[in-house]
Amino acid sequence: MADLATETAGAADAVDPADWTCPAPLRDQPVVVMGHGGGGALSAELIEQVFAPAYGNPTLAALTDSAVLDLGGARLAFSTDSHVVRPLFFPGGSLGDLAVNGTVNDLAMSGAVPTHLSTAFVLEEGVELAVVGRIARDIGAAARAAGVVVATGDTKVVESGHGDGVYVTTAGVGLVPDGVDIRPQRARPGDAVIVSGPIGLHGVAIMSVREGLEFGVEIASDTAPLAGLVAAMLAVTQDVHVLRDPTRGGLGASLNEIARASGTGVRLRERAVPVPDEVVNACGFLGLDPLYVANEGRLVAFVPPHEAEAVLAAMRAHPQGTGATVVGECVDEHPGMVVVATGLGGTRVVDLPLGEQLPRIC
Amino acid sequence: MADLATETAGAADAVDPADWTCPAPLRDQPVVVMGHGGGGALSAELIEQVFAPAYGNPTLAALTDSAVLDLGGARLAFSTDSHVVRPLFFPGGSLGDLAVNGTVNDLAMSGAVPTHLSTAFVLEEGVELAVVGRIARDIGAAARAAGVVVATGDTKVVESGHGDGVYVTTAGVGLVPDGVDIRPQRARPGDAVIVSGPIGLHGVAIMSVREGLEFGVEIASDTAPLAGLVAAMLAVTQDVHVLRDPTRGGLGASLNEIARASGTGVRLRERAVPVPDEVVNACGFLGLDPLYVANEGRLVAFVPPHEAEAVLAAMRAHPQGTGATVVGECVDEHPGMVVVATGLGGTRVVDLPLGEQLPRIC
Repeated sequence: MADLATETAGAADAVDPADWTCPAPLRDQPVVVMGHGGGGALSAELIEQVFAPAYGNPTLAALTDSAVLDLGGARLAFSTDSHVVRPLFFPGGSLGDLAVNGTVNDLAMSGAVPTHLSTAFVLEEGVELAVVGRIARDIGAAARAAGVVVATGDTKVVESGHGDGVYVTTAGVGLVPDGVDIRPQRARPGDAVIVSGPIGLHGVAIMSVREGLEFGVEIASDTAPLAGLVAAMLAVTQDVHVLRDPTRGGLGASLNEIARASGTGVRLRERAVPVPDEVVNACGFLGLDPLYVANEGRLVAFVPPHEAEAVLAAMRAHPQGTGATVVGECVDEHPGMVVVATGLGGTRVVDLPLGEQLPRIC
Repeated sequence: MADLATETAGAADAVDPADWTCPAPLRDQPVVVMGHGGGGALSAELIEQVFAPAYGNPTLAALTDSAVLDLGGARLAFSTDSHVVRPLFFPGGSLGDLAVNGTVNDLAMSGAVPTHLSTAFVLEEGVELAVVGRIARDIGAAARAAGVVVATGDTKVVESGHGDGVYVTTAGVGLVPDGVDIRPQRARPGDAVIVSGPIGLHGVAIMSVREGLEFGVEIASDTAPLAGLVAAMLAVTQDVHVLRDPTRGGLGASLNEIARASGTGVRLRERAVPVPDEVVNACGFLGLDPLYVANEGRLVAFVPPHEAEAVLAAMRAHPQGTGATVVGECVDEHPGMVVVATGLGGTRVVDLPLGEQLPRIC
């Protein structure tokens, strides 16, 4: 999406509503579909074709991520996420945990130390106050665990039959240390690609409670704050090139975004990607690819090859990175594409998904 | 709400969900009602009894407003608002205008110069992309008019039948100039109470389109960004004590919050409050009190008496303050209460409303 700002620069004026029609890249689709919220190609098109021309500003390319602003002498990271997950409570966490960790992790992926959050609730008339209280309690506990303060908030109520009990939108701010410059455009051929732990747990946890499926063991979401892990990595070297938390769209979508933004290729070794047995089993049963299943407590890092060993050791010494492992590397070949080397010596392309395999995952 | 942090300090630990029950001040009401989103007494109780104990932190008292944070040497204002107004488009503006101006104005009420916004959309499956495009266009235009940049964003989609087409949550940041300290606690007896222009227009505009009412003339919302007006006031004196934009709950709710936070009284002169004829007529027809009707482009200011004349002149010279006028003063008597002197020489108490007379106004 790095070339977006250039491509749409001529369309920076406000769109005239009378003239506004759905552009071709939105696939002649006149209405919003679930996939527009899935973090894949449809989400990207909505940003590129609708929001970017309407907003028309130089930081557009950052719309899917936290922005880093120079403000009053401080390097401020700023990010937001709405949370509409169903069900509200699931093994390993709740909407409240996701609302905190989602924004904390978006800030951490720019190398920031998150400091303050806002919470905005849209409540459905008739939802039990005890449910609102449980969500608030989880937000408070998650904020304390992540070392951030909930500093401001808002509450709106919509009539019964609208909304779904509780939606929570968080925004967050944090400070980016001097010398840290972490963004997808900085991926370089030769970089080691590191994943912080087993993938696919959040998506499979949500899926199993929503569908009433049992896979022998209870699968818990991996939701967790990652700012501490990032601080441990930056203590080894400030020259971490890229960080990303593979939420909606999973590892596959995150790697595609990095490859496109940097104009490099990514080569994964399939056997190196840590997929727990229960995720393999659930995905096999449901016909899903674990590479596209959402995570809420994992990160993928691109680091210079000569720093990889030391960064990996620091990650493994941190509670959120005990399962960290190198899964591939950044390459000159196939720029903008992600390719996985299969166990049998073949390769296959890992494309950007269209939408999310499972909607309303976060 | 200034004493809230002290009152609930002992409850700062996480609430155990098993033990959490609806406390008495929530009026033995076990579920969310529309009034919890109305900006009145029910909203305050939700914050005091549910969010404050769960979040447990020293900035709790700021939960209804923008917070001012010391961050990396900068004095950062930070605020958020969700917007669920119906209909999405109305005379004078749209959900997009409110989403920008609402957060810009919350920041301006702490004296900040707003710089960056985030926008988080919750879209309903099936809503026309052209509608989303019109909202985005309005957000872009309103942001340019307010001098802020939309720096980051998020989009989620919920199934058809949930949500209401489009909800937008904005958060914003800005810088508070050195020496500026504007907050409700700073109201002092003797302060002049100034309103920036005619009140009640936004609420009556929404009401008339929603109810299909006609009052002879089309009544347009006053939605507008107020940061420029605030800058003009601060150019006269940095010693502005309190600023507030009387949105949900109207001027009546804002003055009550200021009186309670500062422990002073507020005395209004009924005939001095600028209520346009069309608002008087509409309110008479609908049985509403204009003091409780929402505004989206007005502010109320408490300024030291010796500065009042100069501040008023600066306001009247600004496009958003041509109708500025002194409506009353801050007094020693009846601390925490707002009293209006009627034209007939009597007085009546203006209490904090329970909820909003008209829900989903913003």
